[in-house]
Amino acid sequence: MSNEELYIFKVGGNVIENDRKLDDFLTSFSALNAKKILVHGGGKVATKMAAEMGIEATLIEGRRVTDKAMLDIVTMAYGGKVNKQITAKLLARNQKAVGIAGFDGGLLRSVKRPVKDDIDYGFVGDIVASNSCLVETLTAASFVPVIAPLTADSSGQILNTNADTIASELATILLKTHQVKLVYVFELAGVMGDLNDEKTLIKNITRENYSSLKDAGIIKDGMIPKLDNAFNAIDKGVSEVSIIHYSKINELENITFDGYTRIK
Amino acid sequence: MSNEELYIFKVGGNVIENDRKLDDFLTSFSALNAKKILVHGGGKVATKMAAEMGIEATLIEGRRVTDKAMLDIVTMAYGGKVNKQITAKLLARNQKAVGIAGFDGGLLRSVKRPVKDDIDYGFVGDIVASNSCLVETLTAASFVPVIAPLTADSSGQILNTNADTIASELATILLKTHQVKLVYVFELAGVMGDLNDEKTLIKNITRENYSSLKDAGIIKDGMIPKLDNAFNAIDKGVSEVSIIHYSKINELENITFDGYTRIK
Repeated sequence: MSNEELYIFKVGGNVIENDRKLDDFLTSFSALNAKKILVHGGGKVATKMAAEMGIEATLIEGRRVTDKAMLDIVTMAYGGKVNKQITAKLLARNQKAVGIAGFDGGLLRSVKRPVKDDIDYGFVGDIVASNSCLVETLTAASFVPVIAPLTADSSGQILNTNADTIASELATILLKTHQVKLVYVFELAGVMGDLNDEKTLIKNITRENYSSLKDAGIIKDGMIPKLDNAFNAIDKGVSEVSIIHYSKINELENITFDGYTRIK
Repeated sequence: MSNEELYIFKVGGNVIENDRKLDDFLTSFSALNAKKILVHGGGKVATKMAAEMGIEATLIEGRRVTDKAMLDIVTMAYGGKVNKQITAKLLARNQKAVGIAGFDGGLLRSVKRPVKDDIDYGFVGDIVASNSCLVETLTAASFVPVIAPLTADSSGQILNTNADTIASELATILLKTHQVKLVYVFELAGVMGDLNDEKTLIKNITRENYSSLKDAGIIKDGMIPKLDNAFNAIDKGVSEVSIIHYSKINELENITFDGYTRIK
């Protein structure tokens, strides 16, 4: 196992949808001088585009279903607009960014999620195989892969896939060759006891304090699956998972900086 | 100069817009066992999408102007839908395809075309700088770059750029390291004296017979800029330019096959 560090960042809709936040994030990301990969979501870009095209989102029990029309929109919005704009903005910041989708070069192969309990999610892909060669080749040549949350099955059917899942899958497959650090980019400083008080930032979360933080109701709702996901990555060998503010990425290599949540 | 062969293919709208033709092309392309790059146009995909979104194309003296709304659509249609679908279809044919845009990794940098004689083409880019590193890295690792006709300026502004121009620019910059063959993929067998008679295929066009073919009215209209472009590439050192039917790509390595137009 090589000890070369590799950062895998995941940035989501809230940052992407706001031009100023996105610019701040990309500037900070560019200032981090390390091997790095960026996985992005798409947030409401696809939903907004669907509305403009008069296509209504199909919801089953509150979950959005990716039907054929929505898949086309997701492909264009995430694989086209968001991915290309982020890549071009990084190039302007002297990053050798390369915008790809999760399936490019055979990186991630998926299958359409099976219908279960009568719920058909539509064109949503669950990852079943991976080949790290493309990202290894790119990062070895100092390119910075920017990855849209799309996978494909063996027949070439494109499938919509959660960006968090893609980031943690990539972290796992790149462990063989790197010391992987997985970073969730956030709108807050990290996990906070009180969202309105920076002083309540929880700087370290371990298996030991995680349960008590949950019991106390400090970690709740959508943060629970994120942290379960983080511990899952750590169990597989990822050396550190962080949750950090979008403008602080460049501080990650500064050993005196502790204004974020570290999960170990 | 290395003598390793590298094929650069350009495929346009007529083939891309027809699922059966596109599949035939991609199958034939996949069967060609050589280093290769695919540059694609987008044809009417963007225009159709604009119509669905109620955006009217701006025309000045018959030329389409890429305004802000149309640039977004072109980015999504060419960089998203067309590029991603071609890439996924090639992966299903066991090609290590990687879908990128012309600007990715700093490959092609452009400037917005200056307003001239009061004509503002909008967000259209003229290539001013290039760096072949990304395509060299990818092809050296047996990946097959699939390139959407988008470039970007130094500020990160994405610009719409003609796919023929991108293909011939790539041919030129890759000459340093390869024996480059530029191939225009076509709906006909090649340049034909009578479009309805395959027997009138002109198998070889040289500087010598080009003038007489033009004088005789056999080569006319849109074919003239294509051939001027081809001879321009040859002047720069491209070893051969071909115009070939979309289903015959795999025959290019067959030395007895002569059912296409070779420009030398």
